[in-house]
Amino acid sequence: MLKRYLPIFDWIGNYNQRTLTSDLIAALIVTIMLIPQSLAYALLAGLPPEVGLYASILPLVAYAIFGTSRTLSVGPVAVVSLMTAAAVGNLALQGSDEYIAAAIILAFMSGLILLIMGFLKLGMLANFLSHPVISGFITASGLIIAASQLKHILGIKADGSNLWDLIVSLFSELPSTNIPTLVIGSFATGFLFWSRKYLKSYLLNKGIGHALAEILAKAGPVLAIALTTLAAWGLDLQQHGVQLVGAIPSGLPSLTLPQFEYNIWQELLVSAVLISIVGFVESVSVAQTLAAKRRQRISPNQELIGLGASNIAASISGGFPVTGGFSRSVVNFDAGAETPAAGAFTAIGIALAALTLTPLLFFLPKATLAATIIVAVLSLVDMGALKRTWNFSRSDFFAMLATILLTLAEGVELGIIAGVGLSILLHLYRTSKPHSAIVGRVPGTEHFRNIDRHHVETDNHILTLRVDESLYFANARYLEDRVYDLVMSNPNIKHLILMCPAVNFIDASALESLEAINHRLNDSGVTLNLSEVKGPIMDRLRRTHFVDELTGHIFLSQYEAWNTLRSERVARSVGDL
Amino acid sequence: MLKRYLPIFDWIGNYNQRTLTSDLIAALIVTIMLIPQSLAYALLAGLPPEVGLYASILPLVAYAIFGTSRTLSVGPVAVVSLMTAAAVGNLALQGSDEYIAAAIILAFMSGLILLIMGFLKLGMLANFLSHPVISGFITASGLIIAASQLKHILGIKADGSNLWDLIVSLFSELPSTNIPTLVIGSFATGFLFWSRKYLKSYLLNKGIGHALAEILAKAGPVLAIALTTLAAWGLDLQQHGVQLVGAIPSGLPSLTLPQFEYNIWQELLVSAVLISIVGFVESVSVAQTLAAKRRQRISPNQELIGLGASNIAASISGGFPVTGGFSRSVVNFDAGAETPAAGAFTAIGIALAALTLTPLLFFLPKATLAATIIVAVLSLVDMGALKRTWNFSRSDFFAMLATILLTLAEGVELGIIAGVGLSILLHLYRTSKPHSAIVGRVPGTEHFRNIDRHHVETDNHILTLRVDESLYFANARYLEDRVYDLVMSNPNIKHLILMCPAVNFIDASALESLEAINHRLNDSGVTLNLSEVKGPIMDRLRRTHFVDELTGHIFLSQYEAWNTLRSERVARSVGDL
Repeated sequence: MLKRYLPIFDWIGNYNQRTLTSDLIAALIVTIMLIPQSLAYALLAGLPPEVGLYASILPLVAYAIFGTSRTLSVGPVAVVSLMTAAAVGNLALQGSDEYIAAAIILAFMSGLILLIMGFLKLGMLANFLSHPVISGFITASGLIIAASQLKHILGIKADGSNLWDLIVSLFSELPSTNIPTLVIGSFATGFLFWSRKYLKSYLLNKGIGHALAEILAKAGPVLAIALTTLAAWGLDLQQHGVQLVGAIPSGLPSLTLPQFEYNIWQELLVSAVLISIVGFVESVSVAQTLAAKRRQRISPNQELIGLGASNIAASISGGFPVTGGFSRSVVNFDAGAETPAAGAFTAIGIALAALTLTPLLFFLPKATLAATIIVAVLSLVDMGALKRTWNFSRSDFFAMLATILLTLAEGVELGIIAGVGLSILLHLYRTSKPHSAIVGRVPGTEHFRNIDRHHVETDNHILTLRVDESLYFANARYLEDRVYDLVMSNPNIKHLILMCPAVNFIDASALESLEAINHRLNDSGVTLNLSEVKGPIMDRLRRTHFVDELTGHIFLSQYEAWNTLRSERVARSVGDL
Repeated sequence: MLKRYLPIFDWIGNYNQRTLTSDLIAALIVTIMLIPQSLAYALLAGLPPEVGLYASILPLVAYAIFGTSRTLSVGPVAVVSLMTAAAVGNLALQGSDEYIAAAIILAFMSGLILLIMGFLKLGMLANFLSHPVISGFITASGLIIAASQLKHILGIKADGSNLWDLIVSLFSELPSTNIPTLVIGSFATGFLFWSRKYLKSYLLNKGIGHALAEILAKAGPVLAIALTTLAAWGLDLQQHGVQLVGAIPSGLPSLTLPQFEYNIWQELLVSAVLISIVGFVESVSVAQTLAAKRRQRISPNQELIGLGASNIAASISGGFPVTGGFSRSVVNFDAGAETPAAGAFTAIGIALAALTLTPLLFFLPKATLAATIIVAVLSLVDMGALKRTWNFSRSDFFAMLATILLTLAEGVELGIIAGVGLSILLHLYRTSKPHSAIVGRVPGTEHFRNIDRHHVETDNHILTLRVDESLYFANARYLEDRVYDLVMSNPNIKHLILMCPAVNFIDASALESLEAINHRLNDSGVTLNLSEVKGPIMDRLRRTHFVDELTGHIFLSQYEAWNTLRSERVARSVGDL
């Protein structure tokens, strides 16, 4: 029981010198990555930079205790930060105390929702986010995030919760671009793109050892921060209109409970649900990928509890919604993290940064943080996925396209809701017209095959319809239509057999349709028979009146149905003589 | 083309003396039934009684031209009238001009929506209303309707859009019950229940001919109206507080267009969609039942156009939303109606009533109309369906119960939306954990069966998983979990075969899962193979990279997969020697 809800006991017993070393090295690299990211994502969420640091301390410790992934790196991530900005932005003005309080409430609600889902084992809810919808959503979010950060690169004010508003706002403010900011921003963006691609091989060429080059390459953003901060300080860029991060309170966050104000909770509910599910999906898919590489397992329902605990921890320590980040987790994995202790060590690293480094960040230009975000999110944009999905499945393509367009045009929440709704509707539509075939007997065998594809034996008075789908409300009426059409166009038939080898369940709607078919065929003098009904379905049917009222029989095999109905007819026609 | 959208041409050519006689008799009986019903349902919808008559003239003519059912009786029906009251009641005060105008707009919108659905062939949308949800919704609506009419029987004022509010309101007003109204109301209710059950046999016992007894039995409501109207006039009951229908303008409705006011249209949109779908489902299911009895066909998509035209006709002639009524259609069918002309003749009957009978209705007590409604709707209440559904399917039962409770507690619109949402969620949940089995070879055959149920041959290095469901977003992740669990718990295996005879499609999410499974198994040194993939799925897979990247093979049959992988292994171990 304790082990089930506290996965920490799975590994803490075997902890040794070697794992400690591995975890410490990984923690160092991730800390170097996380400092600029946590500041940047706080900026993206519209929050003061220290909130990003606060969200990167306790949540990591909580996840180390409750999470099942050995290598997941929890903390602020781009998409969830954007969703936080969208949710909280409806309630309060950026920069106000209410805004921060709402973000803290949002983290708490998201934590509660994840915990409840975890205890109720509702991890399957994440399944409703189909891959094309997630992929489209993340691509669109990446574009919105990148666009939203351009104002910091240009040194202008611009706003908007969708791409169109953002672009209009940017264009109208373009004339007031601040040149020194643009220089800093362009330099940082260019340097980050370059360091991401070439810094490692450059360092290797310079004769630096592989391990060190690896670490230094990850420190690209830190280097960009150091260089631009120095420039801002040395050239007194604030006087020239460059926006700086400014004073960040030094020290650790104080623990508090979120405000319990009914109205705010109610307003944030939908957003909290969406953030929880999106965060969970993003986190679980990276955790699963990494776990599989080492033949480890994660438990999705326990992951809900781990992420729930992280968000509660974020909330009570002044942070905002967090989840497992994709790129950081990969880095953590590659750097050799072996247990969640690496996350706890990262938390210590960030805590030290919060205690000591904040004065150094006074001169950090916001444009540098914006550049960090832009470079990070553009790697999430995957327009090629549209083409790949188009090739494979048109309906998935439309769900994806709708998600992208609606997210861009109407914002993140409507985009994802529409995507989920559309993929469910398209799925129901797809199963509402199931494949079915008239079958006949392959001569000399007990096999029955589609009469359109095989040379088969048929009988004037017997018609067999094989339905290749479970029967439920979305296709029950289609089945009725199909059967009536068949009876209309084959006036000679006396027996209809529904062959059900691919029917995995029958719901109450389909049962009513079968009853209606039975009665209506009876009015037309045709018996209804079933064959090859699976065991569990048979058990259910036996509890209904349908079996008693059925004008024909239920046969174990189609061959038996065929033989019985044919010989009955022969017997009757002999009797007629 | 003309014939396709104007089904009237299907039958008007063969119209003759005999069909004319049949249709006229049916029309007479339905007219007698429809006069009190149209007045009563207008009352239920909160509209003046003449609106009920107006909704029973032009709509019937429109349906006769555009509808495909020979015997459907279109006009005001109970559930749609209740939904109209709920929708319009949010916008305007009952009795105000705005209220009537909104009901007219609602009919117009509903007509437009039905027409659009018809032209886009979206009749399948009605499939999303599962039988248990419809049944629960109609039962709950019946209870609400009956409760809402009690105030007229008691002669008090009471209001509420859900059952609880209605009951509280009724109880608090109970002391001011008007005794003469209660007497009239109780008499009418008792008489109607009696005449529904016993009047026909009573008349037959009195020696009246069968056909006449049939007609007179249907005239029970007319008789109740006549008796109570006479009583109200003779005893001057209005002076004693009995509410009367009062002055009804005599004559035919004038034709007008509905108001085009953006706000009202927007407010009514959701209601109009729900009314359209509920009305369509009710109408189509009775039309199909009746058509099948005579081996006729109706076209659901053309029915949308027929009902759409009816509602537009209702709107431009001062009526309110209409659809095909269950009981009236059965009466029409039983009375021998052969073509939709019977509906047109009924329209003439109602038009004559509107021209001549309205002065006679001045003294008609509202309690009598309420009694008509109560007796009609209580036959719709089917609590036994709950038990039957419980026996057959728990998840359908919960969808039904939720629909009933939410409709009773929160009103019609929320009830039906929740019911639809829940049945879709439950369906997705059901398919999210598909049945799957590890299979082995039945010795000496080419058959592969569940290892838990049959004595089969297996191989240490080969594992075959048969999945009995199409693979799509709701179960893609489950498949991943299942496969990883299998590989974890069978560390010896070298080849995994997914056997897909029951997989009818694979969507983009499942494809991503297959790709992930392929990569992760590769990391674990296991090949992924597929067998018995259906043709159309194979065609799609060939358009992706999955086939190229697959570490194993795709085999036509499971037997071939088994043979090939076994001999490969033998070949390799021979090579190792």
